[in-house]
Amino acid sequence: MSEQANIYSKQYLMTAGPTPIPPAVSQVMAEPIVYHRAPAFIEVYERALQNLGRVFQTENQVLSFAASGTGAMESAVANLALPGEPIAVVSAGKFGERWAELGEAYGAEVAHLQVEWGERIEPAALGELLAGMSKPPRAAFATQSETSTGVLHDVRGLTEVAHDHDAVICIDAVSGLGAVDLPQDEWSVDVVVSGSQKSLMCPPGLAFVSVGERAMARAEETAGRGGRRYYFDWSKTAGGQGEQPPNSPFTPAVTLWRALDAALGLILEEGLDRVFERHAILARAARAGVDAIGLERFGPDDDGANVVTAARLPDSIDGARVPKLMRERYGVTAAGGQGRLKGKIVRIAHCGYYGAFDIVVALSAMEMALRDLGLEVDPGSAAGAAQGVFSEVGRAPEPVG
Amino acid sequence: MSEQANIYSKQYLMTAGPTPIPPAVSQVMAEPIVYHRAPAFIEVYERALQNLGRVFQTENQVLSFAASGTGAMESAVANLALPGEPIAVVSAGKFGERWAELGEAYGAEVAHLQVEWGERIEPAALGELLAGMSKPPRAAFATQSETSTGVLHDVRGLTEVAHDHDAVICIDAVSGLGAVDLPQDEWSVDVVVSGSQKSLMCPPGLAFVSVGERAMARAEETAGRGGRRYYFDWSKTAGGQGEQPPNSPFTPAVTLWRALDAALGLILEEGLDRVFERHAILARAARAGVDAIGLERFGPDDDGANVVTAARLPDSIDGARVPKLMRERYGVTAAGGQGRLKGKIVRIAHCGYYGAFDIVVALSAMEMALRDLGLEVDPGSAAGAAQGVFSEVGRAPEPVG
Repeated sequence: MSEQANIYSKQYLMTAGPTPIPPAVSQVMAEPIVYHRAPAFIEVYERALQNLGRVFQTENQVLSFAASGTGAMESAVANLALPGEPIAVVSAGKFGERWAELGEAYGAEVAHLQVEWGERIEPAALGELLAGMSKPPRAAFATQSETSTGVLHDVRGLTEVAHDHDAVICIDAVSGLGAVDLPQDEWSVDVVVSGSQKSLMCPPGLAFVSVGERAMARAEETAGRGGRRYYFDWSKTAGGQGEQPPNSPFTPAVTLWRALDAALGLILEEGLDRVFERHAILARAARAGVDAIGLERFGPDDDGANVVTAARLPDSIDGARVPKLMRERYGVTAAGGQGRLKGKIVRIAHCGYYGAFDIVVALSAMEMALRDLGLEVDPGSAAGAAQGVFSEVGRAPEPVG
Repeated sequence: MSEQANIYSKQYLMTAGPTPIPPAVSQVMAEPIVYHRAPAFIEVYERALQNLGRVFQTENQVLSFAASGTGAMESAVANLALPGEPIAVVSAGKFGERWAELGEAYGAEVAHLQVEWGERIEPAALGELLAGMSKPPRAAFATQSETSTGVLHDVRGLTEVAHDHDAVICIDAVSGLGAVDLPQDEWSVDVVVSGSQKSLMCPPGLAFVSVGERAMARAEETAGRGGRRYYFDWSKTAGGQGEQPPNSPFTPAVTLWRALDAALGLILEEGLDRVFERHAILARAARAGVDAIGLERFGPDDDGANVVTAARLPDSIDGARVPKLMRERYGVTAAGGQGRLKGKIVRIAHCGYYGAFDIVVALSAMEMALRDLGLEVDPGSAAGAAQGVFSEVGRAPEPVG
């Protein structure tokens, strides 16, 4: 044999978006295209909209756009902010900072509290920011799970503080909605943004925003005062979705809606509580694995960061090579760091269609890549630590689909 | 047998968007999700971007968004218009009017020439509009194929007139690009907008805009002067797509990109000229069929309306029942009229993945629905007229895929 057999040709997607999707979701996209005004599509659209409400845990309409998650974030800024008027942003990573960039693009005066990437923003810090503003902000913006660092924020606490200061709060839950409990109505979160390609187990291309009454009223007020939007206008989409039957104001991405409908069905069949529990167990296993390797994790220990686990890489190695080796040598695609964290971290995702052995695979590939770079890692130590967590819970978490 | 056999249970999609897509395009969407920064996706993305340029017949970057076609239209307005400054819009249907709505949403002063729906706007009319403006517009906006009426406009003539008045012109070619020749660079069209779900034989969810140098310079100028955009900002997407390798600034809709890559491959394999010829023959057959039934068509006879054929329905029948019967009784989904044309027309699409027998099916179902409503239509007259056109060209147009 002139070439060595390749035992690593099988590919594993282990990123926090796009995430892998269940076969039952993939399949429906290969079916024939349906006209978006025909009953065959309207049935799918209506059911998916209803089920979105169940996953967002809200009675609000969940407004939907054909867009990346950023499109739904932009809708919040375009509908709430006004040129020359203040908004408040708290950030501790790339996606938090995007709120500030959006605010600036829309001409708002952005009061921006930037916390070190990898730290968690405490609700009190938002309170101080709001208390220090000379004029009440049109809205406050924060992040549930900061995908660039893995840190999870206390959405309930942030919302309470915002409301104490009479501010409307918008939460970017693009990666975490459907992985970590976020009962929007119970916690009175004004605006929750999400996307299809993370915990919702769909391909990228659909973006969602659930808007409470107070935020919607505030958006209507901006329309006559220099607010600029059309495609992302909340009232336009709310009007269309509110018709009987619901009617998207723009051609909906029909293949992605079929996928979403299938995925939401799987999530609700598994049960939201069990979905959250599965994510919690997988995250605990990932943390145990990272600890076993001897790497440091981002964020406080008690933060329940159940969406993605970020491990800090030692300065002694070229960190950018870790995800590169994992993918090129072992066929396991995990994400490195973004922006200022490039080369400094590796991220193991466990949001969406992930089960116990995905964590074993990701940790094993990581162990192997680290050893290739000269680090002393006991083969199987991380995978073993993960198994330890699984054994504790008595059964492997059940995958869906 | 308690029930009659249903010979019409097989479904046919005959709308002008979403359009049916080739099996080779459907299939790739069922494949596993790939990470958008991994080589497996970048290869697809890079090739599709290059091939988009060939289909747009341009050396420009074709900027791409996860959005409906309206998103790319909005990008043109958001990047070019400014609050309080004039733009020019010529419209003769629902999609032309969308340019004006977008302009108003962005606070522009819209000089809007509205022509009767179903008529064609002559380039001279745009000239008169531009000549009558007290201040030069930031841009002029028009439509190639007005999908709501089927009328095709003279993009070359409109562009020449706009340039005579030193105006930048933006063309909505959402439905017609890839069906009717639009050599952007040869005709010096400043901005061409399109979408994935019409002649490009893909599902909805990707929107494109090809921006020439002059328009791009004008967009950069608006950035510092109150222009509001982020997700649809041209320079952001141009910057990302211009990197080596190209890098979408926001998570690209990876399944739709795989579909687009497959579809563009089929279009270029067939050859653009033959694609346009196929559309021309199918349109001629649709027109012959409509004539044979004795219905009136929208638009001038010589307009080469090769994207969609709109037939005016007689006042003696309830027009809204025609597409309803076609779909519910015969399984053939064609579109009726939109907005003020509701109940007044039926539209037969022939843009994208359509071949000779699609026209035969659409015309036959239309004949049958009209007879059900009491019109005297000779069975097979429309289908026969279409066959007559096919025989003239000596061979059936070859379907793709």
